[in-house]
Amino acid sequence: MPRYRLTIEYDGTPYVGWQRQTNGHAVQEAVEKAVLEFSKQKVTLQVAGRTDTGVHAIAQTAHVDLERDWDPVRVREAINAYLVLDEERICVVDAEKVPDTFHARFSAQARHYLYRIHNRPAPLTLDHRRAWWCKRPLDVDAMNAAAKILIGTHDFTTFRAAQCQSKSPVKTLDAITFSRDGERIDVHVSARSFLHNQVRSLVGTLKLVGEGRWTADDVQAALEARDHQKCGALAPPHGLYLLRVDYPDDAGV
Amino acid sequence: MPRYRLTIEYDGTPYVGWQRQTNGHAVQEAVEKAVLEFSKQKVTLQVAGRTDTGVHAIAQTAHVDLERDWDPVRVREAINAYLVLDEERICVVDAEKVPDTFHARFSAQARHYLYRIHNRPAPLTLDHRRAWWCKRPLDVDAMNAAAKILIGTHDFTTFRAAQCQSKSPVKTLDAITFSRDGERIDVHVSARSFLHNQVRSLVGTLKLVGEGRWTADDVQAALEARDHQKCGALAPPHGLYLLRVDYPDDAGV
Repeated sequence: MPRYRLTIEYDGTPYVGWQRQTNGHAVQEAVEKAVLEFSKQKVTLQVAGRTDTGVHAIAQTAHVDLERDWDPVRVREAINAYLVLDEERICVVDAEKVPDTFHARFSAQARHYLYRIHNRPAPLTLDHRRAWWCKRPLDVDAMNAAAKILIGTHDFTTFRAAQCQSKSPVKTLDAITFSRDGERIDVHVSARSFLHNQVRSLVGTLKLVGEGRWTADDVQAALEARDHQKCGALAPPHGLYLLRVDYPDDAGV
Repeated sequence: MPRYRLTIEYDGTPYVGWQRQTNGHAVQEAVEKAVLEFSKQKVTLQVAGRTDTGVHAIAQTAHVDLERDWDPVRVREAINAYLVLDEERICVVDAEKVPDTFHARFSAQARHYLYRIHNRPAPLTLDHRRAWWCKRPLDVDAMNAAAKILIGTHDFTTFRAAQCQSKSPVKTLDAITFSRDGERIDVHVSARSFLHNQVRSLVGTLKLVGEGRWTADDVQAALEARDHQKCGALAPPHGLYLLRVDYPDDAGV
């Protein structure tokens, strides 16, 4: 059975997240339905990052095994046609055939998230549900300085949701940088893998530094406390985008 | 009565356009209601550009005369508070006091529009209702070359809606440029003033050049025909943004 790698973009607003839930419509469910409609095959997608309710994706990565040897362009076009028919806010931006050693989740070498902040006095209109509206002026330099404390290998228990299923709270954070372009602040966060809610916990905490309510020392103390109660408020899901997932060059090892 | 200049941003999706209509909710109506709620004053806003149904604004400009001498920050905050309460997709990004010689429409020296195209095979998700999805590859160089024909002072009857109320079809187009950033193509269009539907007519026509279906000579012939039937199909409203309106430096002459 040929394996296909799908690069998927979605507006997370109308979904309960990637994974099937009993309480609403999931991205996974919508894509699997479109695959069923075009291939007549009931499939289960494997995915790189199980995004939460309201979280967006610019390049989520999944894989699926199909019984027939379809042209990948045909796979992309057919899935998209059914997604449009169902009025979903999801599309397959790319489909390619990969060796069956490729696994969307286990082959991933790095995951990159973008967190978008819109920092201004006026409420958001065009960016409503696309960015976090932060009304108080944020000091990007202070946030970047404090963010450095979090880079590297740490026990991230403070920044981990209660429902996190990861075996260990120890993760290696490769990068977290804030960059301002006028009213907009983009946060780029990279790691091999993340704890549940880790990106939103980190951004929510560093926002306190940007507002001058926390110092870099407070961030250091919170990290060392290994206590989720010491975390700043979670940043909202609608500012978060799964930006890219990296795989080994040959995409099959 | 002090005069206030309001810079207004909106997501045009839920509105029938700027101007009050009998068939739906207008941006003007929403803002005037918010002014009434905070100032108890029934006002009529004067505006730089009466955008159509579904057209967005990043910096629409309007003016209003208020009976009391409010702090402009208070004006901005109060209008926004009522707009948020009414769940509008509109905000005042800036309010300032201006001399009563300032007129949002008549003092305007230039109007700048942005038209956003998303050029790729996959349908849009995050850019749904924020850009025009053009599936066939577009040649930006060809579009820019043909666009040069339209720059300058011309009789733009070909690119004018039947319902246009302008006295003359002769307008001076200062700039129209296409620039690509990956899948995205931004079109910047500037003039002192425009005919009704002129920007969408120009973009819709030049898209035919981008697809290779029209040549620059076809554009020249269409312009010279002075016949609206010779225009390419109108580009959809949801790609269009009123980007900026320029006024004399002292904002009062």
